[in-house]
Amino acid sequence: MGPNILIVGLGLIGGSIGLALQGSPAVNQIIGSDRDPLVVEKALKLGAIDTAASLETGAKKADIIILCTPISTFPDIIAAIRNDLKPGTIITDAASTKYQVMEMFAHLPEQVFAVGGHPMAGGEAPGIINADKYLFENAVYVLTPAPGTPDEITAKLMAVLKTTGADMLIMEAARHDEITAAISHIPHIAASALVSLTHGERDKLNMAAGGFRDTTRIASSDPVLWRQILFSNREPVIEGLDEFIDILNGIRHLLRENNETELYRILEEARQIRSEIPQVRKGLLPGFVDVICIVPDKPGIIGNLGNIMGAENINIVDLEILHVRDGDGGTIRIGVPSADKAILAVEALKKHAVKAWVR
Amino acid sequence: MGPNILIVGLGLIGGSIGLALQGSPAVNQIIGSDRDPLVVEKALKLGAIDTAASLETGAKKADIIILCTPISTFPDIIAAIRNDLKPGTIITDAASTKYQVMEMFAHLPEQVFAVGGHPMAGGEAPGIINADKYLFENAVYVLTPAPGTPDEITAKLMAVLKTTGADMLIMEAARHDEITAAISHIPHIAASALVSLTHGERDKLNMAAGGFRDTTRIASSDPVLWRQILFSNREPVIEGLDEFIDILNGIRHLLRENNETELYRILEEARQIRSEIPQVRKGLLPGFVDVICIVPDKPGIIGNLGNIMGAENINIVDLEILHVRDGDGGTIRIGVPSADKAILAVEALKKHAVKAWVR
Repeated sequence: MGPNILIVGLGLIGGSIGLALQGSPAVNQIIGSDRDPLVVEKALKLGAIDTAASLETGAKKADIIILCTPISTFPDIIAAIRNDLKPGTIITDAASTKYQVMEMFAHLPEQVFAVGGHPMAGGEAPGIINADKYLFENAVYVLTPAPGTPDEITAKLMAVLKTTGADMLIMEAARHDEITAAISHIPHIAASALVSLTHGERDKLNMAAGGFRDTTRIASSDPVLWRQILFSNREPVIEGLDEFIDILNGIRHLLRENNETELYRILEEARQIRSEIPQVRKGLLPGFVDVICIVPDKPGIIGNLGNIMGAENINIVDLEILHVRDGDGGTIRIGVPSADKAILAVEALKKHAVKAWVR
Repeated sequence: MGPNILIVGLGLIGGSIGLALQGSPAVNQIIGSDRDPLVVEKALKLGAIDTAASLETGAKKADIIILCTPISTFPDIIAAIRNDLKPGTIITDAASTKYQVMEMFAHLPEQVFAVGGHPMAGGEAPGIINADKYLFENAVYVLTPAPGTPDEITAKLMAVLKTTGADMLIMEAARHDEITAAISHIPHIAASALVSLTHGERDKLNMAAGGFRDTTRIASSDPVLWRQILFSNREPVIEGLDEFIDILNGIRHLLRENNETELYRILEEARQIRSEIPQVRKGLLPGFVDVICIVPDKPGIIGNLGNIMGAENINIVDLEILHVRDGDGGTIRIGVPSADKAILAVEALKKHAVKAWVR
């Protein structure tokens, strides 16, 4: 018989984990707990949980507890359940920074095992009503076992969470936080700072084209959430910022000293490194190949493109409208799974009198 | 009778200007000059120019000369033609920085008028074969008149270039360079520096998701071109970098001092400013409204979505694949022109059993 799972906090993440684990032979019963009775009701109705329980009752029955509430609630939750836990219980979470969480998990009763968790997927809209059983499919899901947690306990938790379809990675909490600082938190600060640099001046914003919008997209995220994320990972973010500022000062120096050779080397190295990022958003899937085409800009045109690809059995794995011309035409980038498919796509598009080429 | 135009350099930009001006009543004859005879032949065949000429012969006939070669070639070109120019000739260019160009234009013969130009549109692929008469449609096109150029001369040039469909803006060369430093060159350096910050470490790249890829997209551009752009705008870039580093140090200080209130204010202000950037890539068009939908990920699905929108006469002005699930499903963002159309789109999608909502 699989373990009983208690999910604490039935929002987008908790609800989606529940839906993803449903029906898995790796799981016995999914118990849900949320302070909002309407959310509990909705979670039961959607089938995200099998049964509802208070925090304490749920904790008594649970073999695995997954905290899906904000980090700030963890100390109170741990205090409320610590005396109800069975020996062998595994406690994990879904918060986006891990070192701070592992410190909160440091003083659990003996025979209770902590493994931090970070499913790296978010939804477009919050709450149980947007819960989605596929939210974690191909997403990276990091586990950070506490120093005292035996490997077989981590393996047991991983076997359960793997049924969400996520790619599981195990690493130390400190390394997780250093990585997320570098690839998420510092880029966020940089995006905000680039927007600040415009001072909101009208002529600057009017001239800001695609590149600026791409680079600063994440600066449009919820500032309350991001303040919390940045402070919960404060030390790695400050260290990362120091290094980022050093790199920028280095580039400034090269410009000042007219060192064209070294500036070229830095730009080329960054271009090369970036080409090694896995291309599909959520996962570790192989990259795709871009086809560029020029089409009239009118209702139905994306449909036509899609039909042409569909008729050739070519899957569109990415699509971006690069230029738009009011009522006239546009340039569209279509990502397809392979170079072969890209050549096929260009041929098919040309047959339909669409100008197209492989990028 | 309209002016004779000489286009020097028949690459993507020169060729596209030629195509865009063809047939305009504002223009008499379009003369093309390029050091590569095969390029000249292709430009004639495509109709980008009416006739070909050597630099000197073309310059004698021209009323307006548009330099579309790299900045580094300008001094030699100016030296070659300066004695052939008619009184009243207007000379302009298409380079991406303007102060340096205006210095090169500073010692033209009397009665020859300089107006710097920067059409802010680029193509996905270079060369005359990718020239496109719509390249500048809705793009911002900046003119920077020399101090001695009379307003009516600038107006005359603007009337001609307006036929490309671009939105013409007039400003001082120094302001142009300050703006492009802020919205293009510093973001480029930031993107490169963010990629450098990963040191190419495999686990960092594997965990880099959509946000990182968006923020660093421009770091994949041609390093030769960008080295040239950054050095041609060196002083404004260094000044902009200094301010960018100051802003980053300010954020570092807030983190260090635990100043949550002020960090929130900065993030919120940036979010607000960013929301004021015109949404459609190339222009000053009104923004659009996003519809989010969840669809199975299989060949033809983008076609189906497009068909559903087309049947309701809803134009898709932007489309982004937010999540991809291998062989199973994905979340797609569709930009439509108005809130009314967005509601209509959601209704139509739901009728076809597609889960959808207005963002």
